[in-house]
Amino acid sequence: MNVRELIRTIPDFPRPGIRFRDITPLLGDADGLAQVVHDLAEPFRGKIDVVAGIEARGFIFGAAVARALHVGFVPIRKPGKLPGEAIGHDYDLEYGTNRVEVHVDAVAHGERVLLVDDLLATGGTAAAGAALVERLGGRVVACAFVVELVGLPGRGVLEGRGLAVHALCSFTEQD
Amino acid sequence: MNVRELIRTIPDFPRPGIRFRDITPLLGDADGLAQVVHDLAEPFRGKIDVVAGIEARGFIFGAAVARALHVGFVPIRKPGKLPGEAIGHDYDLEYGTNRVEVHVDAVAHGERVLLVDDLLATGGTAAAGAALVERLGGRVVACAFVVELVGLPGRGVLEGRGLAVHALCSFTEQD
Repeated sequence: MNVRELIRTIPDFPRPGIRFRDITPLLGDADGLAQVVHDLAEPFRGKIDVVAGIEARGFIFGAAVARALHVGFVPIRKPGKLPGEAIGHDYDLEYGTNRVEVHVDAVAHGERVLLVDDLLATGGTAAAGAALVERLGGRVVACAFVVELVGLPGRGVLEGRGLAVHALCSFTEQD
Repeated sequence: MNVRELIRTIPDFPRPGIRFRDITPLLGDADGLAQVVHDLAEPFRGKIDVVAGIEARGFIFGAAVARALHVGFVPIRKPGKLPGEAIGHDYDLEYGTNRVEVHVDAVAHGERVLLVDDLLATGGTAAAGAALVERLGGRVVACAFVVELVGLPGRGVLEGRGLAVHALCSFTEQD
């Protein structure tokens, strides 16, 4: 089972010139979904206390990974979605800024956290998620992704912050 | 393990007078997450071909249920998020309208689909999701929820459309 072969490339989405890596064929394949959850989870079995997933596609993989490892799941959400007391972290986009939030009681001091998202591009969202976990006293053991876009600064941004990166497959801009 | 006891009620969210049922303590509890995935999935083992989850909290439970049953997962998304050819269904809210979308190749003709979301209130979102599945030729075996709000029309709306409802726990307005 090659996870990468179940990811399709859609040109010019969400805007002209972007080659979008679409994970929905992978999700729709029972064996593919099983493989990707296994491959995201197993390196961290016994080494983490909780999985944090980033809205929205990080929810899909993150919760399944949490279940596979029998740990809890923490949603890192877009602004205004969490009903309890939350903290937020703003980060820059190509145009403008974005923000992620987490409940203040979502991670306990000293907990080991696996951060999960579908795709690593610039690393901005994952770095913001990691910053939130760290502000709560958690330790980010690794950031795990299904897809890494090489040629973009994501891995360098995260490793530069001391964060380990685990990616199941990669695409270059030409792929 | 009582799933219901891990759901907390937050008054006046997202607006005054609404008692919000917050599933994040349930998600954060390893045993609670395991229990809820088991209880959502097991009635349908061997009886469905795919799980469809509704953005965003339906992704959390839906993908884990799909993995537990070794079937594929289909994301039903907010407008403009899906990169491939998609169809949409508009539905009424208390104020205004909303829309959900699905890829046209996400469900094959004749496939048996379990629709998963976190909460059943008015039933509008689930009914719209079911309509999309049916337009693709799929058959909705059931709509499964973690929480049902009784006293709201959700169950009646879905059962009135011939859809089976599976809910793990319920709250009244007074709870």
